[in-house]
Amino acid sequence: MSELEWLQQSVKIINKKYTVQAEGRQNSLTKPPGSLGRMETVAIQLSAMQACLKPAVDNVYITVFAADHGVADENVSAFPQAVTLEMVRNFSSGGAAISVLAKQLGARLEVVNLGTVSEQENLPGVIDQRISPATENFSQQAAMSASQMVEAMNAGREAVLRAEKHSAQLFIGGDMGIANTTSATAVACALLNEKAENITGPGTGLDKNGVLHKTEVINNSLQKHKAEMKTPLDVLQCVGGFEIAALSGAYIACAQQGLPVMVDGFISGVAALLAIKINSGVKDWMFFSHLSAEPGHKIILQAMQVEPLVQMNMRLGEASGAAVVVPLLRLACALQNNMATFEQAGVSNKN
Amino acid sequence: MSELEWLQQSVKIINKKYTVQAEGRQNSLTKPPGSLGRMETVAIQLSAMQACLKPAVDNVYITVFAADHGVADENVSAFPQAVTLEMVRNFSSGGAAISVLAKQLGARLEVVNLGTVSEQENLPGVIDQRISPATENFSQQAAMSASQMVEAMNAGREAVLRAEKHSAQLFIGGDMGIANTTSATAVACALLNEKAENITGPGTGLDKNGVLHKTEVINNSLQKHKAEMKTPLDVLQCVGGFEIAALSGAYIACAQQGLPVMVDGFISGVAALLAIKINSGVKDWMFFSHLSAEPGHKIILQAMQVEPLVQMNMRLGEASGAAVVVPLLRLACALQNNMATFEQAGVSNKN
Repeated sequence: MSELEWLQQSVKIINKKYTVQAEGRQNSLTKPPGSLGRMETVAIQLSAMQACLKPAVDNVYITVFAADHGVADENVSAFPQAVTLEMVRNFSSGGAAISVLAKQLGARLEVVNLGTVSEQENLPGVIDQRISPATENFSQQAAMSASQMVEAMNAGREAVLRAEKHSAQLFIGGDMGIANTTSATAVACALLNEKAENITGPGTGLDKNGVLHKTEVINNSLQKHKAEMKTPLDVLQCVGGFEIAALSGAYIACAQQGLPVMVDGFISGVAALLAIKINSGVKDWMFFSHLSAEPGHKIILQAMQVEPLVQMNMRLGEASGAAVVVPLLRLACALQNNMATFEQAGVSNKN
Repeated sequence: MSELEWLQQSVKIINKKYTVQAEGRQNSLTKPPGSLGRMETVAIQLSAMQACLKPAVDNVYITVFAADHGVADENVSAFPQAVTLEMVRNFSSGGAAISVLAKQLGARLEVVNLGTVSEQENLPGVIDQRISPATENFSQQAAMSASQMVEAMNAGREAVLRAEKHSAQLFIGGDMGIANTTSATAVACALLNEKAENITGPGTGLDKNGVLHKTEVINNSLQKHKAEMKTPLDVLQCVGGFEIAALSGAYIACAQQGLPVMVDGFISGVAALLAIKINSGVKDWMFFSHLSAEPGHKIILQAMQVEPLVQMNMRLGEASGAAVVVPLLRLACALQNNMATFEQAGVSNKN
């Protein structure tokens, strides 16, 4: 599709000169080399991404993409579909987890409504970009049309362009959509050639029988669309969701613009996997925040060969896990930027 | 020893009423119950510790205890002994990792010099409480006299009383002392009846042969003091250090005063283990920040049956790992305190 040609454009090249310089600076600071562990490596990565020795993530831009899923008709979620729009309102009025976190972090939060079953009223901080009331029920037919997919991925890129306009130093994408672990699990299974049994989890809180039923719905859907799913974009169109498409588009755009990304949990992780499958260079611009309690997340992260920063047993989505680790990045920057060197402090070095 | 009778005094009882109430509040907030994982459990714990439904850790008090170790004479560290006092100066002038972190967190940082080989000049933010120029070389004789141990443990309690005076909501203890992983490892081995091979690590950066030599020094010392080490306090006196004694004293005092503690890494972890062996109720008042890269730390945490919050591959000490997780606690508090309930936000609950 010519409208998605931008997906293949090269990502911005990471400037390795700054990797070397930042490593040198870290080794000159008053601590045994390497003793700050991942606090050192994330600061070094940020140095290279931002092409400077004093990286910063003061200005964080969070976009939560919300959308409904036709597959919710198959009783795959513990919560009713109305919750998607209700939570969009809650994001707007400041009561949701990500609203509270964004405020604490001084981060800019926007919500993009890509398709809720009910129309939304005017809500502060929410961009109404409804593509359709929901995706189609992918246990019956493809989740979205090609043009809907284009629209959703472009909506992701547009969010990144807004983030750039606001001089963001870190982009965080989040998801909201009842039944979206069903969609994300189906996407992951198709991309990794895994059976649903190996990835499906309770999502917002299914019991054991609920998970078995969800697994069956996913396996049947994968079987149904098998012949059509030849490329990552085919997979997205057949069993994906609007918010997953937008997240993937956003991640690819970030890497092309040279804007570091903090990936959230399971849904975002699947979107990241999809983005990497579409354009492998995207991975260079990503940090991975946490290992979700959703059991399939581990497999997604392993497939990308990445290590999340923390494991807090979170499984909320909404970008909440990514937001939680922002202070760690900020402290990592402060350490690299503000610690004294052995020379400055007159401290003796190793024997 | 009558001067240490206070160690056995009961800790403040955690008010379980607030545990139940905080759990109820968490379950009423607009998220699937439990979906914020450890962000929920730490907020609930803090609620119970602070006996309120809106806990806070805005006011954090950090005390770094610094001391030299006679056993440094045995070539067990990658850095020269002069570094202890040099780092005390660096803490004071703001160039050390913990100085940078404390500033970022708006935390109060004080340093207590319990015994550096050289006398210290007047340094802002450093309390000069030198007990002696260093502990004795415990490969030859007991590390400290009974009265020195009393002095060191009381210095820990005094720090907590200062923290209380400043209305601290969280106490963090840190350590600085060349060769202190040797002492901490010896203490851990004696308390857990482990061989040094199972706990000894590179500390600030010993190579493989260095670790082997350190292991031998520790095993020989354990053998030498075996008959005298009948109680946890005997162990501390024979192979401990002034900063380890002070940390243990501080932790016990925190639990008695009802002040939550964030335990740092390996040295602090051993001090926590010692504190728990002396007065088991102390554990109720402790959070454990991170799993250190120092390999023995895992065994210490397992022995206490506790789970650290993060694993960042840090191994610096100075309270740095404990400081790094403070923002996670603050965000956990903000979530519990400020999120909307299902009722407030008009969000539908589980099917």
